[in-house]
Amino acid sequence: VRIGDTWYRTIWPSDDGNAVEIIDQTLLPHRFEIVRLDTAAAAASAIDLMRVRGAPLIGATAAYGVCLALAGDPSDSNLERVLQLLAATRPTAVNLRWALRQLEGAVGGLAEAERAAAAWSTAARICDDDVAICRAIGEHGAQLLSAVSERKNAGVVNVLTHCNAGWLATVDWGTALAPVYLAHDAGIAVHVWVDETRPRNQGASLTAFELGAHGVPHTLIADNAGGHLMQHGLVDICLVGTDRTTAVGDVANKIGTYLKALAARDNGVPFYVALPSTTIDWEIEDGVSEIPIEQRPPEEVTRVRGLAGDGVLTEVEISPPGCAARNDAFDVTPARLITGLVTERGVCAASRQGLRALFPQDPAKPQEGAGGSRP
Amino acid sequence: VRIGDTWYRTIWPSDDGNAVEIIDQTLLPHRFEIVRLDTAAAAASAIDLMRVRGAPLIGATAAYGVCLALAGDPSDSNLERVLQLLAATRPTAVNLRWALRQLEGAVGGLAEAERAAAAWSTAARICDDDVAICRAIGEHGAQLLSAVSERKNAGVVNVLTHCNAGWLATVDWGTALAPVYLAHDAGIAVHVWVDETRPRNQGASLTAFELGAHGVPHTLIADNAGGHLMQHGLVDICLVGTDRTTAVGDVANKIGTYLKALAARDNGVPFYVALPSTTIDWEIEDGVSEIPIEQRPPEEVTRVRGLAGDGVLTEVEISPPGCAARNDAFDVTPARLITGLVTERGVCAASRQGLRALFPQDPAKPQEGAGGSRP
Repeated sequence: VRIGDTWYRTIWPSDDGNAVEIIDQTLLPHRFEIVRLDTAAAAASAIDLMRVRGAPLIGATAAYGVCLALAGDPSDSNLERVLQLLAATRPTAVNLRWALRQLEGAVGGLAEAERAAAAWSTAARICDDDVAICRAIGEHGAQLLSAVSERKNAGVVNVLTHCNAGWLATVDWGTALAPVYLAHDAGIAVHVWVDETRPRNQGASLTAFELGAHGVPHTLIADNAGGHLMQHGLVDICLVGTDRTTAVGDVANKIGTYLKALAARDNGVPFYVALPSTTIDWEIEDGVSEIPIEQRPPEEVTRVRGLAGDGVLTEVEISPPGCAARNDAFDVTPARLITGLVTERGVCAASRQGLRALFPQDPAKPQEGAGGSRP
Repeated sequence: VRIGDTWYRTIWPSDDGNAVEIIDQTLLPHRFEIVRLDTAAAAASAIDLMRVRGAPLIGATAAYGVCLALAGDPSDSNLERVLQLLAATRPTAVNLRWALRQLEGAVGGLAEAERAAAAWSTAARICDDDVAICRAIGEHGAQLLSAVSERKNAGVVNVLTHCNAGWLATVDWGTALAPVYLAHDAGIAVHVWVDETRPRNQGASLTAFELGAHGVPHTLIADNAGGHLMQHGLVDICLVGTDRTTAVGDVANKIGTYLKALAARDNGVPFYVALPSTTIDWEIEDGVSEIPIEQRPPEEVTRVRGLAGDGVLTEVEISPPGCAARNDAFDVTPARLITGLVTERGVCAASRQGLRALFPQDPAKPQEGAGGSRP
């Protein structure tokens, strides 16, 4: 993506080749700061603190975390230690574990002296693949938006999204927002309703920032508002991402996605989920009972961070002192509420048959060819 | 309600009889400040700025606003002017217009010299009636909670509510929270999931404050979380208020209520709406198309107010500079999603038949007896 005059991905190796650099997403949209990660511990911390977030970007960051560890100590014990360290950062996104398996598969059988170089090239490939995959998702999804545009005689296509599934959530392009960018660039009139996405406000801070930087018309709304807008015909299509997709098409995405899917069904609004096949967990079916849901700190609910009038990033408490809070980071939207899944190989039904028609073999298993996930 | 050692209503005439006093709800839970309203303009401004809010309390404040105007100038022209001024403050809550009709009916036929006294006594009666009505709602609703408690063998009854429909939304007791207070006081184990209720956070700021002051166990959650909790069996019953109820039982309540009602239906969780009959608008049926929805300032979405670390109430911007926002204050939950309506005369189906069984005559029409709404 281009910010000002510079083309960025969300993660890249540093010029000296000894580190990786990221955009600190906890400071957006107020400050655009690049942070250098020198160690696997720094990569793990960046994931944990959500300086990087979004299932594909978490996977890419974890991959580079392995590189940083092996550059210093390529031993089996260090490899095992760093895989465990990174896997423990966030429980719900399955891309994290997928990326770690890719690295393990790529370097596990090598002599120690060859491991670091193989890890760096594997991580780079994961990133390049992610960009290609997201671009393909964008092309397939843009056809959905184009069809709505035609039906409305080129009237504005109103998209509702939740959280951030844009380029900031991936290495570039995004998943749910890739179709929006490609449709906008192709001259289709698109407008996006941006849910603020409490408690961390990724919609208000990241999606609004991204869409603004790209010039896509958008309007921020409270998470509470989507159903009302659908009741009044103001949403043509919902497009969201997912952090884990089960073999039958249930999806875990940012908490609140399920509520929007219910409203979409109640109002006949199509509800699509965009995903790289790396988010598919072929080993589970029932998302509600089988996907582990991350519990995050209650302070994310009782406090809100933003820019105070004096230009200082400030955290304010919104509840009474000592108020208990609970912070489930994701919820599960059952396949029955999903109109279709937008993948790098095309759009399919949210069902085992739909997914298997596009992915007859599990592309996430490294033994079937580490590069198999490229479209 | 008791705060510390003092018993409060949310509005009361000042000791000198020339003004009314309110608790400034925009400062809660961080500061408990009483504000004196000397004029009808001050009353209108308090409603507009949401220093007082909640359909019943808006009605009571409007009633006192008429008193304040007539004390200085009891002419027909001033009466008409103040009725218009107050009616224009907020469009959705129907109690506001109901209360103004009560005042108009009580003083319109009197000589000018008698008007102020009649207005003050009518406003006082509206307040006393509201307390009695809310208490009756509490008694009927507590039976629902008691039945859940019995079914769970005295296990904790988990209630989910949205926004604030407690004593701060009424003159005392509340609507949706009155059953919670009475059940808790009767020894039933009750725990309340409190939606923060963006954009104004009435859940985090008011409901959490109220429940804490009364000693009722509660947990703050993001508005996004309710559906997920229901999917996992963590909600036994939903209880919310309403700002306007149609003749067939559709309800307009704080934006986001509709999403919770959809989740309740999808998970078989009973969804009840508590209301004084003064919120019934017998003249309309279809809530989605007929109830006017207030549009509030976009800054309520792009900014959040809370207590900064230095103890100063601070507003922070959460979105990029200049980000467009839309702020619909209410949404409509269709009767088909509502398990029952909890009124001062008992619980009924959310339907014309249900409502008419309890209210064969429209109690809101002043010509049928101004005191007719007392249970």
